[in-house]
Amino acid sequence: MPSKKSKEKKKVGLLRRHFKGDTKSIMDEINASIEFDQRLYEQDIRASKAHCGMLVAQGILSEADGRAIENGLGQVLTEIENGVLPIDPALEDIHMHIEARLTELVGEPGKRLHTARSRNDQVATDMRLWVRDHLDLADNGMMELQAALIGLAEDHIETIMPGFTHSQPAQPITFAHHLLAYVEMFGRDRGRARDARERLNECPLGAAALAGTSFPIDRSATASTLGFDRPTANSIDSVSDRDFVAEALAMAAISAVHLSRLAEELVLWSSPVFGFVQFPDAFSTGSSIMPQKRNPDAAELVRGKTGRMAAAFLTLLTIMKGLPLAYSKDLQEDKEVTFDSLDNLLLCVEVTTEVIKGLEVKKDRMRKLASSGYLTATDLADWLVRELGLAFRDAYNIAGEMVKIAEDKGCDLKDLSLEDFQVLEPKIDQSVFEVLSLHQSVASRTSYGGTAPEKVSEALIAAKVKYL
Amino acid sequence: MPSKKSKEKKKVGLLRRHFKGDTKSIMDEINASIEFDQRLYEQDIRASKAHCGMLVAQGILSEADGRAIENGLGQVLTEIENGVLPIDPALEDIHMHIEARLTELVGEPGKRLHTARSRNDQVATDMRLWVRDHLDLADNGMMELQAALIGLAEDHIETIMPGFTHSQPAQPITFAHHLLAYVEMFGRDRGRARDARERLNECPLGAAALAGTSFPIDRSATASTLGFDRPTANSIDSVSDRDFVAEALAMAAISAVHLSRLAEELVLWSSPVFGFVQFPDAFSTGSSIMPQKRNPDAAELVRGKTGRMAAAFLTLLTIMKGLPLAYSKDLQEDKEVTFDSLDNLLLCVEVTTEVIKGLEVKKDRMRKLASSGYLTATDLADWLVRELGLAFRDAYNIAGEMVKIAEDKGCDLKDLSLEDFQVLEPKIDQSVFEVLSLHQSVASRTSYGGTAPEKVSEALIAAKVKYL
Amino acid sequence: MPSKKSKEKKKVGLLRRHFKGDTKSIMDEINASIEFDQRLYEQDIRASKAHCGMLVAQGILSEADGRAIENGLGQVLTEIENGVLPIDPALEDIHMHIEARLTELVGEPGKRLHTARSRNDQVATDMRLWVRDHLDLADNGMMELQAALIGLAEDHIETIMPGFTHSQPAQPITFAHHLLAYVEMFGRDRGRARDARERLNECPLGAAALAGTSFPIDRSATASTLGFDRPTANSIDSVSDRDFVAEALAMAAISAVHLSRLAEELVLWSSPVFGFVQFPDAFSTGSSIMPQKRNPDAAELVRGKTGRMAAAFLTLLTIMKGLPLAYSKDLQEDKEVTFDSLDNLLLCVEVTTEVIKGLEVKKDRMRKLASSGYLTATDLADWLVRELGLAFRDAYNIAGEMVKIAEDKGCDLKDLSLEDFQVLEPKIDQSVFEVLSLHQSVASRTSYGGTAPEKVSEALIAAKVKYL
Amino acid sequence: MPSKKSKEKKKVGLLRRHFKGDTKSIMDEINASIEFDQRLYEQDIRASKAHCGMLVAQGILSEADGRAIENGLGQVLTEIENGVLPIDPALEDIHMHIEARLTELVGEPGKRLHTARSRNDQVATDMRLWVRDHLDLADNGMMELQAALIGLAEDHIETIMPGFTHSQPAQPITFAHHLLAYVEMFGRDRGRARDARERLNECPLGAAALAGTSFPIDRSATASTLGFDRPTANSIDSVSDRDFVAEALAMAAISAVHLSRLAEELVLWSSPVFGFVQFPDAFSTGSSIMPQKRNPDAAELVRGKTGRMAAAFLTLLTIMKGLPLAYSKDLQEDKEVTFDSLDNLLLCVEVTTEVIKGLEVKKDRMRKLASSGYLTATDLADWLVRELGLAFRDAYNIAGEMVKIAEDKGCDLKDLSLEDFQVLEPKIDQSVFEVLSLHQSVASRTSYGGTAPEKVSEALIAAKVKYL
Repeated sequence: MPSKKSKEKKKVGLLRRHFKGDTKSIMDEINASIEFDQRLYEQDIRASKAHCGMLVAQGILSEADGRAIENGLGQVLTEIENGVLPIDPALEDIHMHIEARLTELVGEPGKRLHTARSRNDQVATDMRLWVRDHLDLADNGMMELQAALIGLAEDHIETIMPGFTHSQPAQPITFAHHLLAYVEMFGRDRGRARDARERLNECPLGAAALAGTSFPIDRSATASTLGFDRPTANSIDSVSDRDFVAEALAMAAISAVHLSRLAEELVLWSSPVFGFVQFPDAFSTGSSIMPQKRNPDAAELVRGKTGRMAAAFLTLLTIMKGLPLAYSKDLQEDKEVTFDSLDNLLLCVEVTTEVIKGLEVKKDRMRKLASSGYLTATDLADWLVRELGLAFRDAYNIAGEMVKIAEDKGCDLKDLSLEDFQVLEPKIDQSVFEVLSLHQSVASRTSYGGTAPEKVSEALIAAKVKYL
Repeated sequence: MPSKKSKEKKKVGLLRRHFKGDTKSIMDEINASIEFDQRLYEQDIRASKAHCGMLVAQGILSEADGRAIENGLGQVLTEIENGVLPIDPALEDIHMHIEARLTELVGEPGKRLHTARSRNDQVATDMRLWVRDHLDLADNGMMELQAALIGLAEDHIETIMPGFTHSQPAQPITFAHHLLAYVEMFGRDRGRARDARERLNECPLGAAALAGTSFPIDRSATASTLGFDRPTANSIDSVSDRDFVAEALAMAAISAVHLSRLAEELVLWSSPVFGFVQFPDAFSTGSSIMPQKRNPDAAELVRGKTGRMAAAFLTLLTIMKGLPLAYSKDLQEDKEVTFDSLDNLLLCVEVTTEVIKGLEVKKDRMRKLASSGYLTATDLADWLVRELGLAFRDAYNIAGEMVKIAEDKGCDLKDLSLEDFQVLEPKIDQSVFEVLSLHQSVASRTSYGGTAPEKVSEALIAAKVKYL
Repeated sequence: MPSKKSKEKKKVGLLRRHFKGDTKSIMDEINASIEFDQRLYEQDIRASKAHCGMLVAQGILSEADGRAIENGLGQVLTEIENGVLPIDPALEDIHMHIEARLTELVGEPGKRLHTARSRNDQVATDMRLWVRDHLDLADNGMMELQAALIGLAEDHIETIMPGFTHSQPAQPITFAHHLLAYVEMFGRDRGRARDARERLNECPLGAAALAGTSFPIDRSATASTLGFDRPTANSIDSVSDRDFVAEALAMAAISAVHLSRLAEELVLWSSPVFGFVQFPDAFSTGSSIMPQKRNPDAAELVRGKTGRMAAAFLTLLTIMKGLPLAYSKDLQEDKEVTFDSLDNLLLCVEVTTEVIKGLEVKKDRMRKLASSGYLTATDLADWLVRELGLAFRDAYNIAGEMVKIAEDKGCDLKDLSLEDFQVLEPKIDQSVFEVLSLHQSVASRTSYGGTAPEKVSEALIAAKVKYL
Repeated sequence: MPSKKSKEKKKVGLLRRHFKGDTKSIMDEINASIEFDQRLYEQDIRASKAHCGMLVAQGILSEADGRAIENGLGQVLTEIENGVLPIDPALEDIHMHIEARLTELVGEPGKRLHTARSRNDQVATDMRLWVRDHLDLADNGMMELQAALIGLAEDHIETIMPGFTHSQPAQPITFAHHLLAYVEMFGRDRGRARDARERLNECPLGAAALAGTSFPIDRSATASTLGFDRPTANSIDSVSDRDFVAEALAMAAISAVHLSRLAEELVLWSSPVFGFVQFPDAFSTGSSIMPQKRNPDAAELVRGKTGRMAAAFLTLLTIMKGLPLAYSKDLQEDKEVTFDSLDNLLLCVEVTTEVIKGLEVKKDRMRKLASSGYLTATDLADWLVRELGLAFRDAYNIAGEMVKIAEDKGCDLKDLSLEDFQVLEPKIDQSVFEVLSLHQSVASRTSYGGTAPEKVSEALIAAKVKYL
């Protein structure tokens, strides 16, 4: 890790902008990308090594030059990872930092490395490698989150809570079933990450500035060394487009929305008003003024980060909108937003995983809230259809009337007398009470994907097979 | 087509809002969705038929009821397609319009159709069907656009134009090669459409309100009848999420950006300043005041529509951000934006296809612009590397100096004398002039995916195999 | 109102797209704007009348021609408002519909109306008028919403509820105070609407295509007739920019966020889990399957509409990004999004106003929830600072310890004994209990803008003076 | 400037994320804001001094404590500006860094500073101060840009160029007139910045956590000391809302779009295809591979930065959407996006100012392009109306026919013979040629705001009076 060896202790205030100055420094301020594209150092060196190896294999570079470059790049990598390569504002990007340091170290051969490539295909390759690496990390991180959700669900197959629609208690469900809904969402997010990875996995290196090159290069070889499935098919497209970034950002944005929904529920559930869960201590914070507070900051921040992650996709699309081919400098603006969005995705996934792992669930409170609010009214209607053969619309109306009667009496449906029921429909008999209990209601929903514990148990097994 | 039989001629002004009124009409104005969700009529009837068939097969409905419903739904479909089913504001959505009319037509059995389903899973199913239908249309439309681009490219394998980077002439390329860059982009867009289709192709019907149902339904049967690969695995997820819509909107937005870039180029190229192409008459328009104008309105509108299509994704994400599970009414807002975005994608693809098909290409003007601007300076640098063994960075500097000499003399590189070249590098000989011609420059870029006509010919064949 | 006289009853299915067809119909589909720009009919006729009057006054048109045009335009207006002017696809926009019908009615003079103007300045003028009209409506609508909030607040100056931070109960506040927070927000939104109105209130008419005109027109006269403060200062700017639309959309988006926050609270408060309020019947809806449900659909839709209103701003900015001057057809895309956003703003404001007016407030439940959760812990800390002279940070720590002791005892702070307090700080005496009651806590917050009833009463009076 | 005294040289790689670790470090990674909120150090100390002064004046703090705090804060400020205050991850934000260091320096009094305030009102105050400072900087920066545009315009009152609509040459205009269009746009942007400043200029300090405070504070005094017009009227609103940030971001986004349009024109104009301008050397860059390139990177980056600035507004709105009152931690996400957006606005304005100042204008090339393309066809139509009394629509048709005749002859309108004109309209006489010259066309557009040099001269004077 680069920063480990660095002994510098950061000071407050260093980030303050100070571009007000002469023409040169203003241009540097807008043009130089080293402040952020240094994130690509490992990918850049990896790709340069692959390029160098191919040039040697094709006889474009001598073996001696190739060895010098290979060793030099290794040394540059070490210097960066040890935090000792200084940032020089005159070398505007990470690519020039590496090439300049390489040439310092190995001399003439360093100047030959840029043969048969251009900054345009070099940057496109580095970005693909970086995005690919981070899609893999996201896939893996979301798998761990699914594992945490599944782990918690396994303890709560029989835990009954109110299921909500319109934020109103609707029907009793099991807590495990609720958690598995998120397992499905993150499963689709992982699918999007993998599809994006597969689609981007073509190597632009060798596209050169835009038209290809006259050197007898072997693009398949470079592609293969770097783990790409094949070289890109069109050199102009290779340096012009960033749709692979856009697709990754869309994936991240959709996943952020899923995370925000879980975060919202965690915030609500941890409020004393609900009282369903308590956050692990490490992820709660206090107030600077109110000593009794126990705030779900971690979840609020995950929820809030949806904003920047959704906007990241928009940023990139606005950048690319209406740009003529091939490369335009506008595309340099793709980087910060991409690093920020995928970093935050990984962070939010990890934070959520830890919160889920440490969550304390208050079953009694869940059950208590499920017991009021007439959550079994649908069960009553379904019973009328199933047992008495009523049309659903008629049954629905009778159940609605029964709820009003219970409201007037200030009790729940199961607390009404059989006579109360028979006023509206004389054919109702004692067996109706079986469907009015929470336990029975939940147990009855045995359709595939339903909330009955037997179904949820099956779903848990299937989820483990599919996702873990 | 519904509107064909309708004899009503629309009048100016009908769209004007007029909601200022009593409480009831204000609530209707915000709550009723029939104005836009009528787009789902066909999908809704298709899904209801499948649901009804399954209920009969499972013995939940009698065969007689099933037949009545089946026939009734067929008649409702016919009425809608003939444009004779009136919109009734009291029936707030398309689902109630269809169910109410069905019950009018067939009586009691109509009221039994809603057994074992809820509006929540019904709407989710209808939307999946609609989005799936339109992803297929988009895939197909983009294939036709690729065919048009490939068709035009086949006529221009040898047509030389300036390739641009930073909107500055950079290197000579072939027009076919430039067109094929877009074929790749739309190829990836189609890939995204197909991935989205595959991921959404699970059937939510039977999830009911959120918890599943106690009726002995067969979700696999309904899924299969409707062409879904399988039922969704979790009933809460099924009614809560719209990520399948978000993914389709992201695909449309990315494709819109690709279309906007082609549109931008068409606008620039058709300007007399470039003069590369002339639009087909049917897609040009005049000015209300300037009689000489020939405006590329079609391309400008395609470019402009990027805005709404990018924003559509944001709209949906903002709607879903932080919503607790399961269904909330906010999700009703997913529809207009989805219909608008996918309709506009299809329209823009079709318009662009027609413009490409009818485009008149002015080869002479392209070649003329490629001839100035020192576009072969990179070829000179590469020649110095290849023939004289210079390091690329040194060769680059010499080529740069030669451009300055030519600028001072007011001529192109190929018009300099051998002596001019030898001032900077005495080893340069007559053979350098071979790489300074446009033809030779283009022909030399034979790397895979490069602009050399022989490579472009191969790329054309490969594109036809891959995409058409 | 146009639709009043129209006897046509809309049919289901009419909105279905059907552009798949010949070249001509595809171009019409993308190019024609009459489907949406008919919303501008009144503004267009108003501006044409002003233009005509000026042309006559300047001697550019004869008085006879002027009278003919004036009368003709009046008749076209009447026809549109009676719903009898048919939409003709060949006349692509509302401007051509009106000009063509005018010429049909009055002959030759109709063809003279377009003297010294262009479609470009005409459209820009119509849009300014439309946006101005709707900013005024929004200002007025939000004033009515403020009035409703103030009206409700007046009944609840002493109603105590828990104030929340991080969705956790924080300190007791009064319900009136909470409502007045929204009065401030909508007050700023109104300020933004008025600033936007003032900035846009310059008349572009006479800018012509882009360069001005050689006819001796009087732009100040037209500006004045149409209620503009002055003509725009630069003709190119006049037809190129839509920042006045963007500013109105930003105002609407910010206001939508304010509305979404109030809507969120209404959704939560109306949930039985909170039980703070009950929605008016007219703005609640039921479930198609769960007979006991009482859903806050109106508030959910207001919350959900934030998505499209935020995205509308983005749509316009994406459209305009990177467009060279002057007019480009892309700008036609400004209309639908503007109509949609401002229509929805007015609708959401009106719906929210009605919900607030009909809201049933459950004071007991509010007070009950405020009584638990140690909401007066800050009062204890402040007492320690004020009465015992402790540093705030030390007082804060003691108060935090006291909360833990109360939690262990399962009681509230006010239920602890004096001895309990003195364990941690022997100087605490009996008077500490005075600050631990809800009533006393609320009453003590007498800083300007604070929650004490006496301050809220003053704030209510000030708000009425300032806003109503 | 903080970084000046810092002797640390930054190293490549320091920015790499490394949050993968234990629970504590994951929570720190998402929760700590010191990395970015250190930007607020000056505002935080300013506000703390004002708060302290007021507490002393009100007798809440002793004078001795007040002096200690005042001096201590001064020393902390000096330490930060000298770059010697270390960042301590355990102190999560800039506020704790300052308070902790203060207490280290002055002891007990430091712990009394937080009396009668909360982190919530403190942060809200700091942000208002920061945004206000940067709105002022933006206002001033845009004034300098206007000055540069006006300065350049003064040299080009008579310089004729083609005016474009739909990116097609439309009518001849003067370059000064074109530049002044942007002066108007930036004038409105400045107006928006000033309106935003005025609206935000109320002081939230004293709102405390959300409910106000029981200490006898004087909010008007603090407000006045900090240059605010008054204290905010409602304490809950004060800590809950960030609409003042949203308004500033909307202003920045709209201004970014204006900058992007100017940037687009600079990119096009500097392309050899147009050849209208040459960039100053300091703002052009070369290619890593093509030695002849002279790329307008500065303008491309300004254009590209529109993306993040438009998205910043969306980020904030998405964060705030649906958040219940009062403060939630999500709001911490307002900072990075605000700093980034306003920093980039200032940077883009400054870069554009410098590019404009150093721009080399190629008048001959502008005039040459204006001479072809029938740009005076509208002048011909207007002449037919004015001199022969034709209706505009008829005149327009004749002018269109004349363009076709000239196209067939391969010449411009002014090169046709009088006979050519008389074929279509026998009443045309020799004087028609007067309106067909570029000079005459431009000179004739004397309507207010028009392109005639006499009008542009007046407009220049007015702009200087209004804006500089």
